Amino acid sequence: MIRRDDFPALHREIDGQVISYLDNAATTLKPQSVIQAITEYYETNGANIHRGKHRLSEEASDAYEASRVTIARHIGAAANELVLLRNTSEALNLVASGLGLDPDAYIVGCMDAHHSQLLPWRRAGRLDLTRVDAHGRLDRDHFRALLRGRPKVVALTYCSNVTGVVHPVEELIAEVRSACDATIVVDAAQYLPHQRVNVRELDVDFLAFSMHKMLGPTGVGCLYGRSGPLAALRPLAVGGGMVDWVDLDGSVDRRIPFKFETGTPAIASVIGSAAAIRYLEAADGPARHQHDRELRAALVGGALARPGLSLIGPPEESDRIALVTLRLDQNLPTGEVARMLSDSYGLMVRSGHLCAQPLVTELAGGESLRVSAYSYNEVAEIERFYQALDELLAWIGPVAAGAR
Amino acid sequence: MIRRDDFPALHREIDGQVISYLDNAATTLKPQSVIQAITEYYETNGANIHRGKHRLSEEASDAYEASRVTIARHIGAAANELVLLRNTSEALNLVASGLGLDPDAYIVGCMDAHHSQLLPWRRAGRLDLTRVDAHGRLDRDHFRALLRGRPKVVALTYCSNVTGVVHPVEELIAEVRSACDATIVVDAAQYLPHQRVNVRELDVDFLAFSMHKMLGPTGVGCLYGRSGPLAALRPLAVGGGMVDWVDLDGSVDRRIPFKFETGTPAIASVIGSAAAIRYLEAADGPARHQHDRELRAALVGGALARPGLSLIGPPEESDRIALVTLRLDQNLPTGEVARMLSDSYGLMVRSGHLCAQPLVTELAGGESLRVSAYSYNEVAEIERFYQALDELLAWIGPVAAGAR
Repeated sequence: MIRRDDFPALHREIDGQVISYLDNAATTLKPQSVIQAITEYYETNGANIHRGKHRLSEEASDAYEASRVTIARHIGAAANELVLLRNTSEALNLVASGLGLDPDAYIVGCMDAHHSQLLPWRRAGRLDLTRVDAHGRLDRDHFRALLRGRPKVVALTYCSNVTGVVHPVEELIAEVRSACDATIVVDAAQYLPHQRVNVRELDVDFLAFSMHKMLGPTGVGCLYGRSGPLAALRPLAVGGGMVDWVDLDGSVDRRIPFKFETGTPAIASVIGSAAAIRYLEAADGPARHQHDRELRAALVGGALARPGLSLIGPPEESDRIALVTLRLDQNLPTGEVARMLSDSYGLMVRSGHLCAQPLVTELAGGESLRVSAYSYNEVAEIERFYQALDELLAWIGPVAAGAR
Repeated sequence: MIRRDDFPALHREIDGQVISYLDNAATTLKPQSVIQAITEYYETNGANIHRGKHRLSEEASDAYEASRVTIARHIGAAANELVLLRNTSEALNLVASGLGLDPDAYIVGCMDAHHSQLLPWRRAGRLDLTRVDAHGRLDRDHFRALLRGRPKVVALTYCSNVTGVVHPVEELIAEVRSACDATIVVDAAQYLPHQRVNVRELDVDFLAFSMHKMLGPTGVGCLYGRSGPLAALRPLAVGGGMVDWVDLDGSVDRRIPFKFETGTPAIASVIGSAAAIRYLEAADGPARHQHDRELRAALVGGALARPGLSLIGPPEESDRIALVTLRLDQNLPTGEVARMLSDSYGLMVRSGHLCAQPLVTELAGGESLRVSAYSYNEVAEIERFYQALDELLAWIGPVAAGAR
């Protein structure tokens, strides 16, 4: 199980009130073991990696590369198939720009993509987005129709950060494989923190995720790439550490994954990322998933039970993560509501377009309130959120109506 | 002053022996206040920045942006002229690829550039390198001759990570400005940890540096750009957080510097970077610089006093940092020597081509041993290094000679 006591920030009080952190789709809090791993590297080593023959450097290199192995194994990959970058956005950009697509290349994306799985593709080629229905589920017929255009790339989102929908990615990938020879790129940033993924079984070419959304430090994003497609990518950046040889005429790139990792990386944060994976793997099990289902039920049930707001996403509790995005009636300003929930109730929730503006514009008119739980949250916190929202809406709704 | 007691890793022992860390040009160790700043963010906040209206997110955003101000002010820049990236390499790549140069654009670099100030330019255009003399000083006549080719870009290195030479960058910039209208890009990664820079007085267009080489965390590189040239750069990556508006037809970039910072950044490490700047500024003063001069004198004097090795760099103690790179006679394997210095004496020094292979090939035949001090080092450590090297060479030299 994931224990609240392991997370120091959960004890944070604001104005004497212990907070409820319900913005986990933006980033998760970190367990003590992750913080400790970072501190330990800085306090007992602190050297740079890969380039030194002295003991501290070798120790740091070993810790860094062992961390890569830990993260890679977590998704069923080999260590040399895992590129360590800053965040999911950078990982997706590396693929989009590195494939060397013709500017006219046809790319199929999805309407509920995060901007980071949308803008790089729009820059790389000719992007069409698969429609979603009113609940945020992909329009499968539309997807099939787009595949008939024989895209070079299909960019999927495993789980939407707006609707919380977990898409049937395995089925979608099978459809792509039988329809064309597109490169398949999956944004797993919202899914992997909640469920295991095995990249081999998934038959995906590239898969991106961020450690900070799964209990790890900020500043570490990962790109899994099947070794063939990965080796064919052009690096986003070139310089020290990514070459085996440089002379006055040219240079020879190092093998994968190093040719994508120029300069000194976020050593401490990568070591902390492995601690996060170890924590997650130790906490995995039926109890965690049962708890997650209860959080999900409380989130969805609370939304469906209330007039005055609509759920942006499916009304079912299955095939989703513990996240709901709400549209408030009367176009109440969600940013103000989020601020009041924070300042008066200690409830940290998200508002705005959630970096998925096309979808939020279509389904929520541009403004929304997102409540995203992680396994350290309790059902009582979600109940407290809805009670607080009830109180606020009872007060702000008539004021807002009167102001018109 | 920079006090040894502030650096926990300096107390590290290996096999009962306290280490001497003399690989500071690769990365510096971190003071407790930097480690504490990182820990504090994770233990008391942990939220994401910029996108939330709740208190934790606003607090994190404030801390992040205040850190940007602290770093920017340190070099005399405005906060919106400072882009927060991963490392110097990424900063230089952003400029090289973001300028949108014609593949035939003429670029003037320097022979002693780190690979990260060489390979991006070779990829971006037609690069010529200014020659250096036998001591690693730039050939000023050659530089002037290259400027007559009216380069679009002049890529300078403030201080070589191989020779330790501090180039007369102010004079070089004045020559460029009077010769052509090139964009001037300075790699200050090795200089800024030792001396203050004011980007306005320097009249530079872009200047890059890494926080990890100046007591800050790994994973934070900075790009200063004058607002005009900076705004004209094309982002390396696009996605969440760097746009103000996205719809089905297009998107509108956020203003500088945010349009270059897509995805969740290394929040904790940026906050830790500001702590490093505060530490450095508090420690600045004549006592620190006097101490640095003594370190420099011990490094250079020790090299010049010894047969059996040559100093790769000028024999003078002025216009250099506390760094010497040594060539060992008889082509002794420097990697092995570095390993023995580490394992038998606890001395951490660097070996190899130092990510500046063209220069190291020319001046040292490809193999070298680098000893780089920081202000927390003591003269006694440098004396200990030379004594250890004497012992090793007395032992290994005859063995190596006998093996031939």
